[in-house]
Amino acid sequence: MGVSSERRKVVRVRAGGPAGQVRSARSDTLAVEEPLMVRLVRGGGPVRSPSSAGPAGEPLTLTMRTPGHDFDLVAGWLVGEGAVAAASDIVGMKACTDEENTIDVALRRGVRPPRPRAFATTSACGVCGSDTVVDVAGALRWPVAGDPVTVGADTVAALPGLLREHQRAFDRTGGLHAAGLFTADGVPLSVREDVGRHNAVDKVVGAALRDGRLPAAGTVLQVSGRASFELVQKAVRAGIPVLSAISAPSTLAVDLAEECGLTLLGFVRGESMNVYTRADRLR
Amino acid sequence: MGVSSERRKVVRVRAGGPAGQVRSARSDTLAVEEPLMVRLVRGGGPVRSPSSAGPAGEPLTLTMRTPGHDFDLVAGWLVGEGAVAAASDIVGMKACTDEENTIDVALRRGVRPPRPRAFATTSACGVCGSDTVVDVAGALRWPVAGDPVTVGADTVAALPGLLREHQRAFDRTGGLHAAGLFTADGVPLSVREDVGRHNAVDKVVGAALRDGRLPAAGTVLQVSGRASFELVQKAVRAGIPVLSAISAPSTLAVDLAEECGLTLLGFVRGESMNVYTRADRLR
Repeated sequence: MGVSSERRKVVRVRAGGPAGQVRSARSDTLAVEEPLMVRLVRGGGPVRSPSSAGPAGEPLTLTMRTPGHDFDLVAGWLVGEGAVAAASDIVGMKACTDEENTIDVALRRGVRPPRPRAFATTSACGVCGSDTVVDVAGALRWPVAGDPVTVGADTVAALPGLLREHQRAFDRTGGLHAAGLFTADGVPLSVREDVGRHNAVDKVVGAALRDGRLPAAGTVLQVSGRASFELVQKAVRAGIPVLSAISAPSTLAVDLAEECGLTLLGFVRGESMNVYTRADRLR
Repeated sequence: MGVSSERRKVVRVRAGGPAGQVRSARSDTLAVEEPLMVRLVRGGGPVRSPSSAGPAGEPLTLTMRTPGHDFDLVAGWLVGEGAVAAASDIVGMKACTDEENTIDVALRRGVRPPRPRAFATTSACGVCGSDTVVDVAGALRWPVAGDPVTVGADTVAALPGLLREHQRAFDRTGGLHAAGLFTADGVPLSVREDVGRHNAVDKVVGAALRDGRLPAAGTVLQVSGRASFELVQKAVRAGIPVLSAISAPSTLAVDLAEECGLTLLGFVRGESMNVYTRADRLR
């Protein structure tokens, strides 16, 4: 567990041209991708670790992820789904010994587990863009709109570089996304990597939950890719007031950030950046 | 429907330095992201379009996508899930008039709809990497391993540029992924864009299904991002023998490509490329 890259054989080809085609066999370091099944063990209560000898848990989600920080991933995913908000909401997590890539999780009595995604949104709440936005904004545990934090533009400009410095595997594979949670002064709290953009954010949020640091008021979440609706949703559900992306945001990401009072930055490259919402937080 | 980009206000900030911070208000073109709910209408039979006055369909999947080519998206997603293989497997698709961003689909009698993802893999078939690979490879309708197609390295090297030329929205937003299906000579059959990498591939595969072009023997699928397990799975389920990615593949993508006999190329940039599996197809 925890191996984020592996080597594979590869044929390197350089297409024609005056010198003709060139082939060379070598080995390449690739980002590891494996499935993770998350199962819910019912019963709750003060169980530290659900027993693998007990009844098999019911499937909650199946995600393709890079192994490592799996408990952070599961905890952060539960936060992003709006199911849990404190470390004590999760009474136990255990990697199954009899089944690879499976984690059983037990929730505190009274905590409602997330529903499978296809059923999470029904006709009752509507699935058009605006309704979705309102739905998320209305259900926030911690309104981030009131977070008084301000961040220096110089600090934001430095985050992509800091993220890269803390990315242990990226330079080897070129295939891993990263997410990092930073203080408003640019001090890294945690940095996580994954083949999936969403998983990297889940891992960072899960680490914050397990450290008792939610709501993550006064922090900045830096991501290596684009900013989608789902990433904004994950940020606000963790109480993070500022999300900074190296690439473009989508329309729905901007709309949700506006509605929730999150500061959304995109195209943070070199000294320049675009501020899509709540520019008042940028010093 | 079909609007793939929209303008939003943005504050452009250039961080400090000798000249101090510079701010300017402008507008930015963003990739549109909206939810799409796909519902299954039971009953099957020779219905051309399920009636919106009938019983509401049951939710099949909810995806965040860029509007446009929605029927292609749904059709291709059904192919990728292994549920359908011919245009006649889908007896009707209809965009709901009473609910935005919702498509009802009816399948031919006897066609089994995909199950919600969290339940698609149970303990019975195992979720460890190797089992997953074997599971997919064993269930293929069209073994791509036997496809005798060969592709010139020069042709492959030209595909990212061709993809970009056919991408109408990319240069405006910087936030859309693209996928294109090409003949082995590099002639484009269809190019589709989406905020989601998987959706862009679904749209291309769906277009091929609806044109009666599956299995897509002898073709090359070019994608603008990385190659994950899921993209390889979607390619082989559409009968596509060659998948070319601009960025890195994951370990599981390579393992599945190897098992299924798909030619997998990565880091296709300029004149050079990495061939991870079945290099014999590269001329």
